Amino acid sequence: MALIVQKYGGTSMGSVERIQNVARRVAKWHAAGHQVIVVPSAMAGETNRLLGLANEISAQPDPREVDMLCATGEQASSALLAMALMSQGVPARSYAGWQVPIRTDSAHTKARVKSIESERLREDLDEGRVVVVTGFQGVDEEGNITTLGRGGSDTSAVAIAAAMGADECMIFTDVDGVYTTDPRVAPEARRMRVISFEEMLELASLGSKILQIRAVEFAGKYRVPLRVLSSLTDPLLPIEEESVSGTLITFEEDLQMEAAVVSGIAFSRDEAKFTLLGVPDKPGVAYSILGPVAAANIDVDVILQNQSVDGTTDFSFTVNRNDFARTYKLLQEQVGPAVGAKEIIPDDNVCKVSIVGIGMRSHVGVASLMFRTLADEGINIQMISTSEIKTSVVIADKYMELAVRALHKAFELDQDPAEKDQE
Amino acid sequence: MALIVQKYGGTSMGSVERIQNVARRVAKWHAAGHQVIVVPSAMAGETNRLLGLANEISAQPDPREVDMLCATGEQASSALLAMALMSQGVPARSYAGWQVPIRTDSAHTKARVKSIESERLREDLDEGRVVVVTGFQGVDEEGNITTLGRGGSDTSAVAIAAAMGADECMIFTDVDGVYTTDPRVAPEARRMRVISFEEMLELASLGSKILQIRAVEFAGKYRVPLRVLSSLTDPLLPIEEESVSGTLITFEEDLQMEAAVVSGIAFSRDEAKFTLLGVPDKPGVAYSILGPVAAANIDVDVILQNQSVDGTTDFSFTVNRNDFARTYKLLQEQVGPAVGAKEIIPDDNVCKVSIVGIGMRSHVGVASLMFRTLADEGINIQMISTSEIKTSVVIADKYMELAVRALHKAFELDQDPAEKDQE
Repeated sequence: MALIVQKYGGTSMGSVERIQNVARRVAKWHAAGHQVIVVPSAMAGETNRLLGLANEISAQPDPREVDMLCATGEQASSALLAMALMSQGVPARSYAGWQVPIRTDSAHTKARVKSIESERLREDLDEGRVVVVTGFQGVDEEGNITTLGRGGSDTSAVAIAAAMGADECMIFTDVDGVYTTDPRVAPEARRMRVISFEEMLELASLGSKILQIRAVEFAGKYRVPLRVLSSLTDPLLPIEEESVSGTLITFEEDLQMEAAVVSGIAFSRDEAKFTLLGVPDKPGVAYSILGPVAAANIDVDVILQNQSVDGTTDFSFTVNRNDFARTYKLLQEQVGPAVGAKEIIPDDNVCKVSIVGIGMRSHVGVASLMFRTLADEGINIQMISTSEIKTSVVIADKYMELAVRALHKAFELDQDPAEKDQE
Repeated sequence: MALIVQKYGGTSMGSVERIQNVARRVAKWHAAGHQVIVVPSAMAGETNRLLGLANEISAQPDPREVDMLCATGEQASSALLAMALMSQGVPARSYAGWQVPIRTDSAHTKARVKSIESERLREDLDEGRVVVVTGFQGVDEEGNITTLGRGGSDTSAVAIAAAMGADECMIFTDVDGVYTTDPRVAPEARRMRVISFEEMLELASLGSKILQIRAVEFAGKYRVPLRVLSSLTDPLLPIEEESVSGTLITFEEDLQMEAAVVSGIAFSRDEAKFTLLGVPDKPGVAYSILGPVAAANIDVDVILQNQSVDGTTDFSFTVNRNDFARTYKLLQEQVGPAVGAKEIIPDDNVCKVSIVGIGMRSHVGVASLMFRTLADEGINIQMISTSEIKTSVVIADKYMELAVRALHKAFELDQDPAEKDQE
């Protein structure tokens, strides 16, 4: 008997029929003798409907009241799921965040979980009930309803799994796992059976579409094995099959031989690059440039400063493409003149491609295989950035798909690492 | 400065525009220096939408989960109203029933209010805020969400007014007050400026369309002056005008000279009558007949047993017309044979007309004026039932409108009692 937390997203809860399918799936785990806590999102579209009403009423609705409003979405879907379970003969009970309670700080619309009382849930589980807990919400010290921000139900599920010491937290969603890269770009992309928390975090640009990054951090910190799997399969899929489906996100020491040198390839087209030419190279020049950018609340990603020649240097950095115009204006009007740059070269036709893998720590030559592969395809690398388990390059965005496919092939990501070992 | 509780129904909260109108009206009272607690219903249609989902999922959804589900409607509308108030510059805060808390028993879907904490609301009022409290819901001892049943927001408003010692509880609705009878039947029907709690309760068949009867009982018991008034007037209607509009439901001793002998005429077309002829008149015969009817959960209204002749009696009673077929079947198959009735005569073409007025206590001849008026119109009275402040007759339903109009005229209900005194 295991204690399992299962989280179902808005699409999985999108209609009465789908809610009944979720109930069937949960009932199957319950019937097999497992203790199950279910964390559903609001029915698809409901949170947007509620926020739409709020925005019609006020351009800047009060955050406390926004939480009060939006928390109703998960409360309704949780009650409906409990009803569906009971109508299938499974004893069940739903709880709103404040009933558990799930205690958070008071940062309305983006609160953080502080603690979770496990007693009430434990009692229900011990009496044979399935427990349904609203995702996305909690209660602060003064008894105000808080929400964890969009996608916060993932975090709720992980936090509950951590507090209850669950054996696994299963995130049911409309994809069947985490892929080596986006299959729309590289059709040969392969679903990973297992991946480390560190890699999952670095693959954020792939993973964030599937899982809230905060939930992954939380799971890593509190050592909760996390599985991403599909809610679109037959709800009565045998448990032996379902329990090994999807992608398991787990701890490095559990990956053993399976770890590939490179696990996956992430990319982002939403990049823009600026280069300041001929900046007089004085101590503090990087701060003179990036300080005002940060003050304007613009996130800087890759940063590159060239070797100084004749007392001047060239300085490049990338930002999100949405911030392109704002950043360019700031550089032209304020930063450029202040640091004495000779010229400012903007470029909003770049992208970033990254290879990620914990094997990079112990394997040499990984980065150089990346660079050689890109050179072979005639792709010019404009910037390079490295971290312990990730190497990123900035290239012209017209080459993005080509680069991803070439790297996917070069690192043999289309082959299952377990099978490769057997060759 | 007064402390006012204002309740707004689902129609008044039916759209973003209407919610903004409610906020304007509340803001007006707040600006005039009054302390205001607002109790909104769910947006029109929302509770039915939620119940529809529940019924799609389960033929008999669990009552605890139904409450969990339906309570979201008022929580959302309360948050939206607080936002609307703030967007108009009025400090406001919304509370769900459990946050106040409004404590109830555990009778899910029809809970009764046990107590209300006033402290938190008082603090907000003292700090100059408008307080918005969800109607219709509370929390039981175990922390489960409960609801008070359909229309329960009226009861919430009155209970809050009682707990806070409010000066008046204003029920804003889509009618402009309580009328001497239904204007669709008697166009000369007149809005009453004031009425006693006792009369309002007896006028249930008129009043229940406007106010939940339990709310009237509650207001009478806890001595909360209750005003029914329209939310369809200009939200910026001057307070001097608005505060005397609608109908005030108050205490007998405050009615003074104004009390008319008869205040209003109630009627119900949803009646059906049964007569059991030739029932052997033994002790306990009434129970033998009505016991099984009550056991089948059928409400009996008027009951009449004739003088015994030759050891047998005729026994008549009325039920709601919806229960006609069920009652007839029960009488034919079970009750009739059991009590030895010679014949069972069903009649689903009857109605009930009642005159109501606290003046009937001290004035003689009121009932006889009623009977004479009906006789003058050639209307045969089939059954009569009297209570301290009400006289009801059962007649053929084709005469209903005629009877109501004739009685309305005979008791001079088209004239304002205050004006009559001055003649």
